[in-house]
Amino acid sequence: MAENRNRPIRLGMVGGGAGAFIGGVHRIASRIDGEYQLVAGALSSRPEVAKESGRELGLADDRIYTDYEEMARAEAAREDGIEAVSIVTPNHMHFGPAKAFLEAGIHVICDKPLSSSLEDAQALASVTPKNGAKFLLTHNYTGYPLMRQAREMVQSGALGKIRVVQVEYPQDWLTEKTDEDNKQASWRVDPKRSGAGGAIGDIGTHAYNLARFVTGLKTEKLAADLTAFVPGRQLDDNVHIMLRFEGGAKGMLWASQVAVGCENGLQLRVYGDKAGIEWRQDNPNQMWFTEFGKPKQLLTRGGAIGVAPAEHMGVRVPPGHPEGYLEAFATLYTQFAAIIRGDGAEYTDVLPSMADGIEGMQFIMAAVRSSEQDAAWVTLEG
Amino acid sequence: MAENRNRPIRLGMVGGGAGAFIGGVHRIASRIDGEYQLVAGALSSRPEVAKESGRELGLADDRIYTDYEEMARAEAAREDGIEAVSIVTPNHMHFGPAKAFLEAGIHVICDKPLSSSLEDAQALASVTPKNGAKFLLTHNYTGYPLMRQAREMVQSGALGKIRVVQVEYPQDWLTEKTDEDNKQASWRVDPKRSGAGGAIGDIGTHAYNLARFVTGLKTEKLAADLTAFVPGRQLDDNVHIMLRFEGGAKGMLWASQVAVGCENGLQLRVYGDKAGIEWRQDNPNQMWFTEFGKPKQLLTRGGAIGVAPAEHMGVRVPPGHPEGYLEAFATLYTQFAAIIRGDGAEYTDVLPSMADGIEGMQFIMAAVRSSEQDAAWVTLEG
Amino acid sequence: MAENRNRPIRLGMVGGGAGAFIGGVHRIASRIDGEYQLVAGALSSRPEVAKESGRELGLADDRIYTDYEEMARAEAAREDGIEAVSIVTPNHMHFGPAKAFLEAGIHVICDKPLSSSLEDAQALASVTPKNGAKFLLTHNYTGYPLMRQAREMVQSGALGKIRVVQVEYPQDWLTEKTDEDNKQASWRVDPKRSGAGGAIGDIGTHAYNLARFVTGLKTEKLAADLTAFVPGRQLDDNVHIMLRFEGGAKGMLWASQVAVGCENGLQLRVYGDKAGIEWRQDNPNQMWFTEFGKPKQLLTRGGAIGVAPAEHMGVRVPPGHPEGYLEAFATLYTQFAAIIRGDGAEYTDVLPSMADGIEGMQFIMAAVRSSEQDAAWVTLEG
Amino acid sequence: MAENRNRPIRLGMVGGGAGAFIGGVHRIASRIDGEYQLVAGALSSRPEVAKESGRELGLADDRIYTDYEEMARAEAAREDGIEAVSIVTPNHMHFGPAKAFLEAGIHVICDKPLSSSLEDAQALASVTPKNGAKFLLTHNYTGYPLMRQAREMVQSGALGKIRVVQVEYPQDWLTEKTDEDNKQASWRVDPKRSGAGGAIGDIGTHAYNLARFVTGLKTEKLAADLTAFVPGRQLDDNVHIMLRFEGGAKGMLWASQVAVGCENGLQLRVYGDKAGIEWRQDNPNQMWFTEFGKPKQLLTRGGAIGVAPAEHMGVRVPPGHPEGYLEAFATLYTQFAAIIRGDGAEYTDVLPSMADGIEGMQFIMAAVRSSEQDAAWVTLEG
Repeated sequence: MAENRNRPIRLGMVGGGAGAFIGGVHRIASRIDGEYQLVAGALSSRPEVAKESGRELGLADDRIYTDYEEMARAEAAREDGIEAVSIVTPNHMHFGPAKAFLEAGIHVICDKPLSSSLEDAQALASVTPKNGAKFLLTHNYTGYPLMRQAREMVQSGALGKIRVVQVEYPQDWLTEKTDEDNKQASWRVDPKRSGAGGAIGDIGTHAYNLARFVTGLKTEKLAADLTAFVPGRQLDDNVHIMLRFEGGAKGMLWASQVAVGCENGLQLRVYGDKAGIEWRQDNPNQMWFTEFGKPKQLLTRGGAIGVAPAEHMGVRVPPGHPEGYLEAFATLYTQFAAIIRGDGAEYTDVLPSMADGIEGMQFIMAAVRSSEQDAAWVTLEG
Repeated sequence: MAENRNRPIRLGMVGGGAGAFIGGVHRIASRIDGEYQLVAGALSSRPEVAKESGRELGLADDRIYTDYEEMARAEAAREDGIEAVSIVTPNHMHFGPAKAFLEAGIHVICDKPLSSSLEDAQALASVTPKNGAKFLLTHNYTGYPLMRQAREMVQSGALGKIRVVQVEYPQDWLTEKTDEDNKQASWRVDPKRSGAGGAIGDIGTHAYNLARFVTGLKTEKLAADLTAFVPGRQLDDNVHIMLRFEGGAKGMLWASQVAVGCENGLQLRVYGDKAGIEWRQDNPNQMWFTEFGKPKQLLTRGGAIGVAPAEHMGVRVPPGHPEGYLEAFATLYTQFAAIIRGDGAEYTDVLPSMADGIEGMQFIMAAVRSSEQDAAWVTLEG
Repeated sequence: MAENRNRPIRLGMVGGGAGAFIGGVHRIASRIDGEYQLVAGALSSRPEVAKESGRELGLADDRIYTDYEEMARAEAAREDGIEAVSIVTPNHMHFGPAKAFLEAGIHVICDKPLSSSLEDAQALASVTPKNGAKFLLTHNYTGYPLMRQAREMVQSGALGKIRVVQVEYPQDWLTEKTDEDNKQASWRVDPKRSGAGGAIGDIGTHAYNLARFVTGLKTEKLAADLTAFVPGRQLDDNVHIMLRFEGGAKGMLWASQVAVGCENGLQLRVYGDKAGIEWRQDNPNQMWFTEFGKPKQLLTRGGAIGVAPAEHMGVRVPPGHPEGYLEAFATLYTQFAAIIRGDGAEYTDVLPSMADGIEGMQFIMAAVRSSEQDAAWVTLEG
Repeated sequence: MAENRNRPIRLGMVGGGAGAFIGGVHRIASRIDGEYQLVAGALSSRPEVAKESGRELGLADDRIYTDYEEMARAEAAREDGIEAVSIVTPNHMHFGPAKAFLEAGIHVICDKPLSSSLEDAQALASVTPKNGAKFLLTHNYTGYPLMRQAREMVQSGALGKIRVVQVEYPQDWLTEKTDEDNKQASWRVDPKRSGAGGAIGDIGTHAYNLARFVTGLKTEKLAADLTAFVPGRQLDDNVHIMLRFEGGAKGMLWASQVAVGCENGLQLRVYGDKAGIEWRQDNPNQMWFTEFGKPKQLLTRGGAIGVAPAEHMGVRVPPGHPEGYLEAFATLYTQFAAIIRGDGAEYTDVLPSMADGIEGMQFIMAAVRSSEQDAAWVTLEG
């Protein structure tokens, strides 16, 4: 991972005020390789919070906004205005800001999922960005070096023809009834702010996106059984899905927020007719790779490689020195910076895009629709 | 695990001649605790093989048979005749011998699944055993001490109300087209000898049985997607199933014989509203147990226990000295010996029975039926 | 692992009465492959215990002894007398029985260490066995298939020239003051029954023997720091040793009975100039093997092999079905049976011998001597 | 981990030009929490490299130096001069810059070990920093949240009286003869630049420091056996040490650069009379904790805690989202920033200090001295 050798990109942020989680993650990710400098923000819709949060982050008073549309206008008009903006609001508040900034010619980095409804997602996709403004969706798990390597291994044929894809994302933090005061939890279980999906939208999309990223397989149909286990909960907290991919591969996806003992157990297993891989996010510096009839190999991030080369994978420190979640997140930011500078053509293919966001929304809606029909097979397109 | 303090039970065997795998396993299992002595056998239907195999195992010539019906008659007539028989033939050859020996008043230890068709299974269940002859089905994974403990933990309420059950059994040994000369493989992929299910019958039933054993949950419905990935294969080599249990719990079952890198990855994970457990057969002396909001605990076979007592679990050597597959298998044999001797009332509840065998066949047939209907929800009863 | 095709060898046992641990282990080990049948015993020096224990194990009254010398005489005189005897008494009671049975022409299977003093060990080595009676020392960890394979890999040069050997055996069961009533613990902490070494003799010898077995390296010198951490304990409960091998390799050995959290953590790591291996007894079906500059490979018992063939390794069930402590122990018994029958020349080299027992005693005494001299370097020979 | 709410501290750097490893690590660490901004540097003693590296990092030309003394003078004289400097040169080049900047009143962040000789280390300790300039030694592994927690657990008595400390740091990257062109390797095996110790200074000090940090135990004596396994190598590439601590605890330390299969296997295990802990750097988000007689618990960074509170531990993202090497490194930088600002009194105790650096040098020299005397016991003081 080369260090930034350029002037940092001027960055703004929408959402991410006091008490937020993912806003802080985006800020660290933007800083790790020195590619961005935060200079403006509409960190909260509540003026006091916006002001205080902005000042604490060192923003000048005239670049602290409470209205994202005003921010888009004002920043686009400044000579030293922001070049990119991070949108880290709850799902239902992605569409508005993303549209506003793209139309103002400001590059957009948007947290996933793309929106809270497929309509919003499609509307956003039809926006014409001014001056070719670019869009990045932060499906951050695709930034892990070994997931990049896994993708290359699939593409190079090292696994042969893919047959089975098992992906899961169990957590346990919503095992009990959600406290209204828990800012992280409360919007995620509220259909008005999350959209029609609970766990399916919050973590199911991550699992789905990662499986798609690594295998490249297109989904033909899915059958979903969504459940809200916690009494009174309106949105699903457990997701069981069977997948059929074009070309005949099959898969299972399990996402849960009530699997006691699982902190953040994203796991991907892919089996082809030549070889299989297995990877877990909670120890992301290792990946199993087994060729049929040979011993299992433990590939390590940046370490000795059995099959595919590990170049341009976003490795910062030598194998054995673990990198983690923030570094993977930062890799998306840093490679998007290269694209913004017109120097990142090689990353266009791997960075999560508007199209991935649309597909993610289709996936969520298809799962909800299938589940409402007693787990009937449905297509993503509806 | 107390050592045998009695005269060994006289044992016969049907199947298990030269080249067989599971026959040898049954013989070791019968010997470990000194509870049985093999004295008769119809080890093969081919006279030469039967004779040679019998002699190699030290059987007297007059107790080497080629016909199981003759064996049942002759042994029942001898004063020193066998008291129990192990049936270790391919699936389609379970019914005949089991019926013959039960009707001859000889206890039966039968490999799983119970038969190759539900009709046979039900017919066997309606047999009236002479002299109260008993029946054991060797769902051997239930013999692992930690699976016994898991069952007790569920029953004692340590996990709370069960919500999610994830069970899987991936292997890779049938990844490629089966060699006709591979005795183990050839009958398993042949509908005439295996029945209508491939992986579903060979390993899917084990996974299903283990989940049922530990959770006690009854299945309401299942939706199955069975696939034969290897070109030309007639029976499924990959099984995807969604499960709905009575009372609202949900589950997923994955079994595969084409998951490259998996030797024998039977894994059970059960999550309740209070706690969760996770166990893998390939390192069976450990089980994760997590109470919500507390650190994960690694319970060990016979070791310090978080919740439930571990008595009568079949532990032979101290924690840290691993026991394995053969010991778990032996525990079934040994506890069945106690039942045969009229001294094993405490084991009646935990040993796999005729009823478990019927349910296993229902499970296989339901999965096949569902898959034929594009993964429609079906009940076990049909 | 081929099953026994012969008449079982008639076996006796000295020690192993009610309440004993290792006696039961030896009995199971003798039965697993059907090679032995227990027919006589001096299971305790207390007549009542001897009688009751013998009857419970199904021995005829006239073959229950209380005196091992009488047993040796009587059994040697019987036409159907025992052909082999297992000695499973505390350390100080190994020498007498071993000498008596060897001189009576009865094969001896002796628990480790060879004795409680080097003098006894040497005296035993100078005994002339009648009729070529053979001797086996049950350093059971050498029976694990992957340790056999590791030894072959070292011999074949797969690791290159060995540089570093790290072996350890931590337990925690003696963390607190020993209860007098704990039969297992009490003799192990008593110099009269254990000899001059505590942990060094009980588990340190196992660790040392395993390192020697796998690497073949001869010890040039060692420096030992033995400690009794528990107040009032007379024998060491923690062992720190630095090793220098002939040819320049170096090693460390750690054994402890006060390492809280360790059940039975025997671990061996060997590093050569070409490759390294790592193995743990508590998950003995796996071994890491890494060639320099390549990914780590996880070799499995009986599974796909990176380098050396795994024949004659004592594998009973397919990879993924774990075998454990009892199976490894049984492999020693079974291969010794082949030697007894004159059919086991191939095993002479791998089965632990009288010479290994002498070296084990030298190792214990050298460690005690070094520790008394403030961890001075000493040779095994003194 | 609170985000920086202040103006970033102006930072300079000595060393770390093109081709360097640890310089880049320091720069990322300084950026992660937004606490520092790099504005000046003497990145190389070669003018061309210094200039080019400086420009690439965005330094103004007048703040690119080739001489650290000139840099110290010039920066101290500027109103906007650097407030702190990172020293990331090879060991023999730590003393000069550290002295110069401390005497110029500029805070110093120095890579470990403190120097290449004990004399230099002591001379540095006797420098009187101008204006109370502070000093930080980057023993980065102490920045891992679970190592902070382990230290608190020891201090709180959760482990009881410490008995045994096993620490190790195996690598394999110097298994073969070092290529002269490998910038990272070449100075580490050169006594002129590394000092008298090879592996002992490069990684042995890290292991020693971490054990000291967590246990708080003072070393009474050590006996060291250092080896250079690679033919022609002048400095040790393998370190075996036995440790005796004040109060009676014992320990072993193993460090190696020739342990094939080990990338960066720093591991610490500490056993007291009540409980034990085990931690590995390559999966640093987990730590085993076992209370005697209870099941092992897997504590996670920021997760549910068995014993001690995990506040102020430097956790940035929720449990299950792994943090790694760079985050731990950044925690040292960030907490040192608080001290620089006069707001970090709570961190004084945990941040590695000049005294730790002196002790580290004493440790290196004692190990070398002991090894030269055939592993005689020596004290740190000589």
